[in-house]
Amino acid sequence: MKSLLVRSALLAVCLGGIAGAQSAAFRSVDPMIGTGPDGHTFPGAVVPFGMVQLSPDTEIKPFKQSYKWAAGYRYEDSSILGFSHTHFSGAGHSDLGDVLITPEAGEVKLEPADYRSTFQHKSETAEPGYYAVTLDTPQVRAELTATTRVGVHRYTFPSDKPAHLVVDLRSSIYSYAGKVMWSRVRLREGGLVTGMRETRGWAPARQLYFAMRFSAPVTGHLFRNVEPVPQEYLGFSGVRRDATDVPFKEGRGLVAAFDFGQLARPLVVEVALSTVSEEGAIANLNAEVKGFDFDGVRAQARAAWEKELGRVEFSGTEAMKKNLYTALYHALMAPSTAMDVDGRYRGPDEEVHQAKNWEFVSTFSLWDTYRAEQPLMTLLQPEERTNNVVHSLIASQQQSPYGILPVWQFAGLETWCMIGYHAVPILADAYRKGIRGYDAEAALNAMVASARYRQYEGVGEYIDRGYVPVDHDDESASETMEYAFDDWTIAQMAHAMGKKEIEQEFTKRAAYWRNVFDAKSGFVRPRLADGSFREPFDPAKAGNGSGFTEGNAWQYSWYQPQDEAGLIQLLGGEDKLIQKLDAMFDAKVDPKQYADVEDIAGMIGQYIHGNEPSHHLAYLYAYAGAPWRTQERLKQIIESQYRPAPDGLVGNDDLGQMSAWLLFTSMGFYPVAPGSNEYVLGRPFVDETTLHLPNGKTLRIVKEGSGDYVGSVSLNRQPLTRVFLRHDELLAGGEFHFTMQSTPNKEFGRTPSARPYSMSTAAY
Amino acid sequence: MKSLLVRSALLAVCLGGIAGAQSAAFRSVDPMIGTGPDGHTFPGAVVPFGMVQLSPDTEIKPFKQSYKWAAGYRYEDSSILGFSHTHFSGAGHSDLGDVLITPEAGEVKLEPADYRSTFQHKSETAEPGYYAVTLDTPQVRAELTATTRVGVHRYTFPSDKPAHLVVDLRSSIYSYAGKVMWSRVRLREGGLVTGMRETRGWAPARQLYFAMRFSAPVTGHLFRNVEPVPQEYLGFSGVRRDATDVPFKEGRGLVAAFDFGQLARPLVVEVALSTVSEEGAIANLNAEVKGFDFDGVRAQARAAWEKELGRVEFSGTEAMKKNLYTALYHALMAPSTAMDVDGRYRGPDEEVHQAKNWEFVSTFSLWDTYRAEQPLMTLLQPEERTNNVVHSLIASQQQSPYGILPVWQFAGLETWCMIGYHAVPILADAYRKGIRGYDAEAALNAMVASARYRQYEGVGEYIDRGYVPVDHDDESASETMEYAFDDWTIAQMAHAMGKKEIEQEFTKRAAYWRNVFDAKSGFVRPRLADGSFREPFDPAKAGNGSGFTEGNAWQYSWYQPQDEAGLIQLLGGEDKLIQKLDAMFDAKVDPKQYADVEDIAGMIGQYIHGNEPSHHLAYLYAYAGAPWRTQERLKQIIESQYRPAPDGLVGNDDLGQMSAWLLFTSMGFYPVAPGSNEYVLGRPFVDETTLHLPNGKTLRIVKEGSGDYVGSVSLNRQPLTRVFLRHDELLAGGEFHFTMQSTPNKEFGRTPSARPYSMSTAAY
Repeated sequence: MKSLLVRSALLAVCLGGIAGAQSAAFRSVDPMIGTGPDGHTFPGAVVPFGMVQLSPDTEIKPFKQSYKWAAGYRYEDSSILGFSHTHFSGAGHSDLGDVLITPEAGEVKLEPADYRSTFQHKSETAEPGYYAVTLDTPQVRAELTATTRVGVHRYTFPSDKPAHLVVDLRSSIYSYAGKVMWSRVRLREGGLVTGMRETRGWAPARQLYFAMRFSAPVTGHLFRNVEPVPQEYLGFSGVRRDATDVPFKEGRGLVAAFDFGQLARPLVVEVALSTVSEEGAIANLNAEVKGFDFDGVRAQARAAWEKELGRVEFSGTEAMKKNLYTALYHALMAPSTAMDVDGRYRGPDEEVHQAKNWEFVSTFSLWDTYRAEQPLMTLLQPEERTNNVVHSLIASQQQSPYGILPVWQFAGLETWCMIGYHAVPILADAYRKGIRGYDAEAALNAMVASARYRQYEGVGEYIDRGYVPVDHDDESASETMEYAFDDWTIAQMAHAMGKKEIEQEFTKRAAYWRNVFDAKSGFVRPRLADGSFREPFDPAKAGNGSGFTEGNAWQYSWYQPQDEAGLIQLLGGEDKLIQKLDAMFDAKVDPKQYADVEDIAGMIGQYIHGNEPSHHLAYLYAYAGAPWRTQERLKQIIESQYRPAPDGLVGNDDLGQMSAWLLFTSMGFYPVAPGSNEYVLGRPFVDETTLHLPNGKTLRIVKEGSGDYVGSVSLNRQPLTRVFLRHDELLAGGEFHFTMQSTPNKEFGRTPSARPYSMSTAAY
Repeated sequence: MKSLLVRSALLAVCLGGIAGAQSAAFRSVDPMIGTGPDGHTFPGAVVPFGMVQLSPDTEIKPFKQSYKWAAGYRYEDSSILGFSHTHFSGAGHSDLGDVLITPEAGEVKLEPADYRSTFQHKSETAEPGYYAVTLDTPQVRAELTATTRVGVHRYTFPSDKPAHLVVDLRSSIYSYAGKVMWSRVRLREGGLVTGMRETRGWAPARQLYFAMRFSAPVTGHLFRNVEPVPQEYLGFSGVRRDATDVPFKEGRGLVAAFDFGQLARPLVVEVALSTVSEEGAIANLNAEVKGFDFDGVRAQARAAWEKELGRVEFSGTEAMKKNLYTALYHALMAPSTAMDVDGRYRGPDEEVHQAKNWEFVSTFSLWDTYRAEQPLMTLLQPEERTNNVVHSLIASQQQSPYGILPVWQFAGLETWCMIGYHAVPILADAYRKGIRGYDAEAALNAMVASARYRQYEGVGEYIDRGYVPVDHDDESASETMEYAFDDWTIAQMAHAMGKKEIEQEFTKRAAYWRNVFDAKSGFVRPRLADGSFREPFDPAKAGNGSGFTEGNAWQYSWYQPQDEAGLIQLLGGEDKLIQKLDAMFDAKVDPKQYADVEDIAGMIGQYIHGNEPSHHLAYLYAYAGAPWRTQERLKQIIESQYRPAPDGLVGNDDLGQMSAWLLFTSMGFYPVAPGSNEYVLGRPFVDETTLHLPNGKTLRIVKEGSGDYVGSVSLNRQPLTRVFLRHDELLAGGEFHFTMQSTPNKEFGRTPSARPYSMSTAAY
């Protein structure tokens, strides 16, 4: 505890010292970035890692067409349905959009087509923790802010018309007939409204409870169940059948309206969420807000953001700072709090559990975030934060009905989205970076149990044959590659813990990527159960039937960060790898190849920046002894892929992964192999970055001179001839200098010893 | 506490002293009585007031046709589907039939049509707490027993075939498409199986959890979801889509099979229920059973029944004893335990609550049981039992989203079945009979809140107009009559508590029955909102559109136990009441009148013994000074309405009400006006009844001499000239003699002072 207290004391000092920088950072954030075509971010109010994301929804499309509205709001739209309390930031799929509230002046309208209102972008204000817009039809000014578990609304109504709020429990992002399985709304003493809904969406059986109160008395209410409850269980006398003004209603299509009469002052609405119970939501409400103090909550949210954003200072162009601080903002949203103030939460088994001395967090988009988002958090956030992530993953494995770690989890529930078991590298990464506030044995057990779970996605055959056969699983090639990487991180951790047998088992599996690599064509290829590679083979074939997940052989063939030496050997030398990478970046691509593939955007040849399988590729030149080529490719990517505008993200932000890539790359290094303790050098894209490290130390990263090539690098005045950095070297703080020049330094990083360790297959 | 200890000590002594009588009583019970056409009782295993009722289901009919299968089993049937864990005893409607288990030998069959097996009644054994049958097809001997929360099965399989169990979570009594909204099954470490299902049935949103374990290892399992989960939320990779042998499955149509290989010894299965959670079910399982000791659990169940049945001794014919002890057995089933061993339960708000120092009970068929079943329990059971009922009713009101007492509640959830607010007389009855282990203020508040809840079934208009208009509510006449009675019991309790204003308010309302009584025709009649009686009027009209609930003016016109004097006055004298009663009993009835009315059976003219509105009628002659006519009618009813055979109950037992009527009547008195402390005298139908009262005292009721008329009555050797008894007189114990004679004693009970107090409208 002592060291901990000391650390936070130091931290407080640092943060105190940089208040000016903080508000500059705060002002640089533009939540509208990414709300355009493909970013899938939302503009609404949220606090760092908050459970509530209170944001406008512009469209609710049926399942098949709703990809583009994954975050509820889309900058291109001109009307708003209302404001709901849960949103993913940059997900490729969705759910959520819970407890939609919309203000009305005059008559009550209960149908979306009627209560939808147009709005003008010029009436919008969006900053971290605050969003405002004017709704044209009711002429209502709507303002939103939030605490961790409570969304706070402030509505200014025209004073000459009766004010109403509609609460629509039917509304859902990724909606479809029958998605809402049951819902309840109840008006309690003193105008407290509670309720719940249970949806079968991306998560199979999600219960969400809420508690809501208003700054003005409720003068009337109307509860309607639009989808009638089957006659079979209403063929009886009683309130449910007869009365219309009872304070309680249940059903599968509930919409409620609350009347407040003519209001001289703005109406403040406080809405708390819970995954546990209505009582839990009430407790969350009482714990986090009081007195309908909208401005106070907004100031508190701003302070929270300034503190988190203040951990990094960038000096560069305004445009670049806007990109970077908005990226940092987006990186600080998930995994988010998923438990009540009393520590109770609903786990993967849908039972209620109690967290003791740690916080249960969820929204794990692991296939994306294990790459750079989680390593970024481990670098920037207090150790407690990563410990909570680790605790939550271990608890999820122990409470999983399958006994495995999460794949794509939110609200504690599994969605099975994407492939791999990428909670594994996150646990290994935390351990290798010295974070220890959890039971390491339990963590390793959870990793091993997940990697040995035969029923999951071809793992059984992967264990038996050394690869997943494409005739049994369509995404077999990608699965084999990613399993092998995850397995290597288990071996790493087992080695560090002195678990020899586990180390051996998974070191062997870490090489299984070779079983799908065809040295003849020089590509990873879908392989059949009979051992042969499937014919015909087109490395550009992507999507269904390709054997690859959201990609093709052009991206997946170079995904072995644990064994680049092996790749170079199979290809026949490092020049061959460089040729392959160039062929990929410079390829002429027929867009038809990706016609039926989701999440494909930001293409540079066959390099697809908008999707994760490409994120490490530019750094591979450094493994082949040509870091100057990495420097060139990064410039090409940075200049083409990020703009400080609503359409400034070329692909889904994926819960911060796209942003984390930008942040690392701008600083000059990237965690190509999470689970190792190394970062591969690229080149900085800002003049200076100052990291206020959670251990109280400060690291200044300085770009000296002009030109786009790295001439030399020094760490605390000592020349650095390696093209990689170790985590402990960053945590030590101090000065990290890149001296730039206008011509490549082709000697830098040439010698084998200068390259990342995975160049030697006998790693560690 | 002291008095309590003393009491139970005394009780123990008494019980000790009558072990022989106990096993005689136990042997007299025939659980098959009432399993025939209309009784709706079940033959399976249950302990007194047990949460689990483990019993065979012979048919699962779709909603509209399932009335006859309300208890799952029907004596007329020749095949059994399996054994499920929840059943109502004698209900007119149903739900339940949860967690159906059926044994199979040889191949696994998952569909009811395939796993259904024929059986022979001669292979059945049914006794309190134990049921056994041989299933022809698999040639499996099935035995069932139970604790409060655990059903224990023992299956003896042919030793040469592989043994399986099918657990069908689709199966439901009162089934219909979409009734099962979600279900789960999970195989845990060591062969522990847990799961849940959520149904929208008679109760709107009922969650039931279970935990199950087997005495033999599970050698294989198959989980199948027959109703596919919508593609919308399975369009992702992952276990749920691919694997068939995962230990977890969710969906809306789950069926599971467990394999045990060839078994040399019988398989014992222990299944615990919980309304709270799977963890709760596991805790219940571990608390109540261990070691798969089927015979031990059976012995324990038998001991529990012998103790409860031993509270009364009857001497009479074997046939009559069989009727009476089976009636007592059926009277001891509800309200049943509805909380976990740790005191947690799911309340009417569907939230989980904690009971402290009392037990939450549910299954309140109040429209039936307030009449005689609950008064019988108050007389026979330890005070703690009635205190638990009162605590549960108060808690239910406080947790009700409407703030009112239960109407027809089970598993803590409201079904809104039938009319009235008859939890009110139950609370008043307990208070007037001196039971005080609860907060009386809270009880009275709950009663008043329920009686003032305007949205419920015309109560608003009842308060404003003094009656429920038939043009606004079809059951208005019955509602007005029953509300007025319930209101009177509130006035009684308020009087006893010195709450003058409440007493006045409800004394006034207690007279509202007069507002629907038409003195001209001498009947209660449906009245319109404009104040006029609806024309045309046919007192025999029953069912939909009649203004009456499961009856007609012939039964409801005489339902004012609080004001018989007022009735006689309006009719124009006591002879007029006697004429009306005779006209009712002797009427020629066209059965077509009741064609569309449920629960009509056991007709004597317009007297319908099979349904509750008639249950007090035979005793009304005593109010008119002609108790000898009551004695004649009771003989007529007893001889025609009860037989010790499967078809021996003429109507639904209604959670013990039909049985309680028989028990009181056989002893010689009946609680015509629950909420008063009086019992009206009839005549005994057994030679001697010995009540071992919960206060340790003993009351002997002796029928002396022959003949069917009461000549005289004495209480502890003092002649009793009244035709009613007070509760305290019974509790005092001693000797209560009826001297019978073959001719009526027309003087007995003639004088006004001899009649029940409600003959004076200024009661108490």
